[in-house]
Amino acid sequence: MQKYLAELFGTFVLVFVGTGAVVFAGLGNALTIGLAFGIAVVAGAYSFGAISGGHFNPAVSLAMLINGRLSLPDFIGYVVSQFIGALAGTAVVKLLATGANVKNLNGLGANGFTFGAGTAFAIETVLTFIFVLVIILVTSEKYSAGSATGIVIGLTLALLIVVGLSTTGGSLNPARSFAPAIFDGGKALSQYWVFLLAPLVGGALAALVGRFGFETESYDKY
Amino acid sequence: MQKYLAELFGTFVLVFVGTGAVVFAGLGNALTIGLAFGIAVVAGAYSFGAISGGHFNPAVSLAMLINGRLSLPDFIGYVVSQFIGALAGTAVVKLLATGANVKNLNGLGANGFTFGAGTAFAIETVLTFIFVLVIILVTSEKYSAGSATGIVIGLTLALLIVVGLSTTGGSLNPARSFAPAIFDGGKALSQYWVFLLAPLVGGALAALVGRFGFETESYDKY
Amino acid sequence: MQKYLAELFGTFVLVFVGTGAVVFAGLGNALTIGLAFGIAVVAGAYSFGAISGGHFNPAVSLAMLINGRLSLPDFIGYVVSQFIGALAGTAVVKLLATGANVKNLNGLGANGFTFGAGTAFAIETVLTFIFVLVIILVTSEKYSAGSATGIVIGLTLALLIVVGLSTTGGSLNPARSFAPAIFDGGKALSQYWVFLLAPLVGGALAALVGRFGFETESYDKY
Amino acid sequence: MQKYLAELFGTFVLVFVGTGAVVFAGLGNALTIGLAFGIAVVAGAYSFGAISGGHFNPAVSLAMLINGRLSLPDFIGYVVSQFIGALAGTAVVKLLATGANVKNLNGLGANGFTFGAGTAFAIETVLTFIFVLVIILVTSEKYSAGSATGIVIGLTLALLIVVGLSTTGGSLNPARSFAPAIFDGGKALSQYWVFLLAPLVGGALAALVGRFGFETESYDKY
Repeated sequence: MQKYLAELFGTFVLVFVGTGAVVFAGLGNALTIGLAFGIAVVAGAYSFGAISGGHFNPAVSLAMLINGRLSLPDFIGYVVSQFIGALAGTAVVKLLATGANVKNLNGLGANGFTFGAGTAFAIETVLTFIFVLVIILVTSEKYSAGSATGIVIGLTLALLIVVGLSTTGGSLNPARSFAPAIFDGGKALSQYWVFLLAPLVGGALAALVGRFGFETESYDKY
Repeated sequence: MQKYLAELFGTFVLVFVGTGAVVFAGLGNALTIGLAFGIAVVAGAYSFGAISGGHFNPAVSLAMLINGRLSLPDFIGYVVSQFIGALAGTAVVKLLATGANVKNLNGLGANGFTFGAGTAFAIETVLTFIFVLVIILVTSEKYSAGSATGIVIGLTLALLIVVGLSTTGGSLNPARSFAPAIFDGGKALSQYWVFLLAPLVGGALAALVGRFGFETESYDKY
Repeated sequence: MQKYLAELFGTFVLVFVGTGAVVFAGLGNALTIGLAFGIAVVAGAYSFGAISGGHFNPAVSLAMLINGRLSLPDFIGYVVSQFIGALAGTAVVKLLATGANVKNLNGLGANGFTFGAGTAFAIETVLTFIFVLVIILVTSEKYSAGSATGIVIGLTLALLIVVGLSTTGGSLNPARSFAPAIFDGGKALSQYWVFLLAPLVGGALAALVGRFGFETESYDKY
Repeated sequence: MQKYLAELFGTFVLVFVGTGAVVFAGLGNALTIGLAFGIAVVAGAYSFGAISGGHFNPAVSLAMLINGRLSLPDFIGYVVSQFIGALAGTAVVKLLATGANVKNLNGLGANGFTFGAGTAFAIETVLTFIFVLVIILVTSEKYSAGSATGIVIGLTLALLIVVGLSTTGGSLNPARSFAPAIFDGGKALSQYWVFLLAPLVGGALAALVGRFGFETESYDKY
């Protein structure tokens, strides 16, 4: 159970800090928003990574499932924990922002787009593909980044979000997008399917490229 | 005594650099302010961490006390040293800023809020809870972040302050808030109780979650 | 073949994230653009570095060739892979930006200058010289930066691009400049020779200074 | 001689990148300027640190001399190399900026102040004291920061410059200030004595605190 708790806490921190920066610090500086999400992953990776592997993202967990590095029961447990953590993160952001009289909540950090869903899908797929391919490689036994691993992963996420922020908001994570969509409703909810499916497609592709293109390991047993 | 000197110097650096950035560089860029506090912790953690553990914050010391990783006499010595270091930091900032004719001192970097104290208390509690939980985990023998530890802790603080800057100023540290409140007086002083108590509550909760939720170690002897 | 694939993917990530930041996040913040390129190199260095050495740049590969750390056939294979990866990066940026109705494409992140070519040549030569000299040293057996290597290289690139952004755009990489020049045409294409030759000159000089000035190793066999 | 060459190159990179950012990217973003100097030190520390120790600053070399970690002949050789490297850095910045028609050279990144020299002296002394104390500790055998050492030192410098930028420009380094003062003349030159002496005082104090306050090592022989 401890690993599920780790995924829950880690995703809570990711959504609280990342979307909290959007709500409390505003969208004016892409680097600040990107680093909020990225450093939250750094914090979670070093705190909870040794317990659960530090996914905090169903797209990452799916990639690990596909490559046999996570069992199906654990995949389900991880994803449920991630959604609960994300919901808690958004709930706390909303509660605190409302209490502090923040006037523009920036949709609680919801993801969305004002152009064709196909392009949004493609953006999220490409961004998540790069993110998860980096994770698959630097966390593999073959190409481990050692003690720098969590920092590499977090900084990579930060700059991928910098690239995506002005178009889709840069989700790369179905759990992270779900919570604000539920609380904010409207367009964020009706467009949520993109932020659910595209990261999963990108993550799955990265898993296959990592395993067959670069021969990262897979496990048959746990 | 060397460890008390380390806490004094480290907290001096934290308050001088962090609130110095607020006074000399202004409040325009949340990332800059956050990183000033965060990198000051990085500097202190690697310089003084091997001597005292590198707390520089009564909320961190309380968490270590609760988990049996700091003795009660040392807790008292640490906290006294932290308050002296913080006072010295603010005194030097004020002296230099006055001498340099800085027109807007930004309240010497004092923390404060313009909404209900309950929400401010909640914000500081949540931010400190996350900060201290990360510290408790990455400094534990079980989940040590190795040579990246200080960088992880400092970057985490930086982005938590980014989240809190526009509402309470993002204290997370009773010693850091005390010094500007004493020098600045007025609202900063009358609201100080929030910045004294909320971080202690957040830190205590993190200590308990770390110890009982994630089974980080406790020591019975020193 | 895996190492050529690594160079292709790594250069794709570099151009997609770096020029993607220029196109999607704009040129307003030099640090953001510099870090986009720099962190892309960090991501690539830790992901693909153990496979190919993580060059992603013909100027780096040339320096390694000169110092006998890369064979001629591999040099050719690396450079071809780098150009293909760069072209793919720009193609994806253009496709996504067009689909997302981005109004100002900023020349797809093309490099260029509005003053004498001699000065532009000198700027790119100096920047690349520093960049490649750092690489030659921190990746040498004699002065290895250990697990921090990729972070040091990426951060160095980031700040060199900060210095060059307002004049030439800060290329330091013939493959990175080629792709936007081909897609954007016009001035970017007619000035491309500077961004092809100057980084190669800077890289070659750095190789010689590294080898003869600081006695970094060379290999006679592979 | 290789170590003198290392100090020369490292100080060249520091001044070229740091003051180059001031000249080419402007003074609008304190974090960008601070990181330009800081990351240049990171680059130099990992490239040349294993050769010379990576001082690039007479105040650092003086502290090492005082604590017996540098011989007097080497101190002289280091300082001469640092001044030559700094002059080369400013010369190249001026040459490139003039060729690129940069309109506002920002005094080539010269340090200066518009208030009493006593306060400027105090600011530079305090900033350098903190910087060198961190260096003395994290490079000591007793409290070594391991592979993170260069990153800690560089990030510390970055944020200390953020604090000092709006008042004195944040020098902390007599060699770094000398070169723009010589090229720019006028006020920068007449105020240079502050930037020569104050960092030396701060560095000397840090050496004494490090050695006697925290018992870092000293060597009697070389």
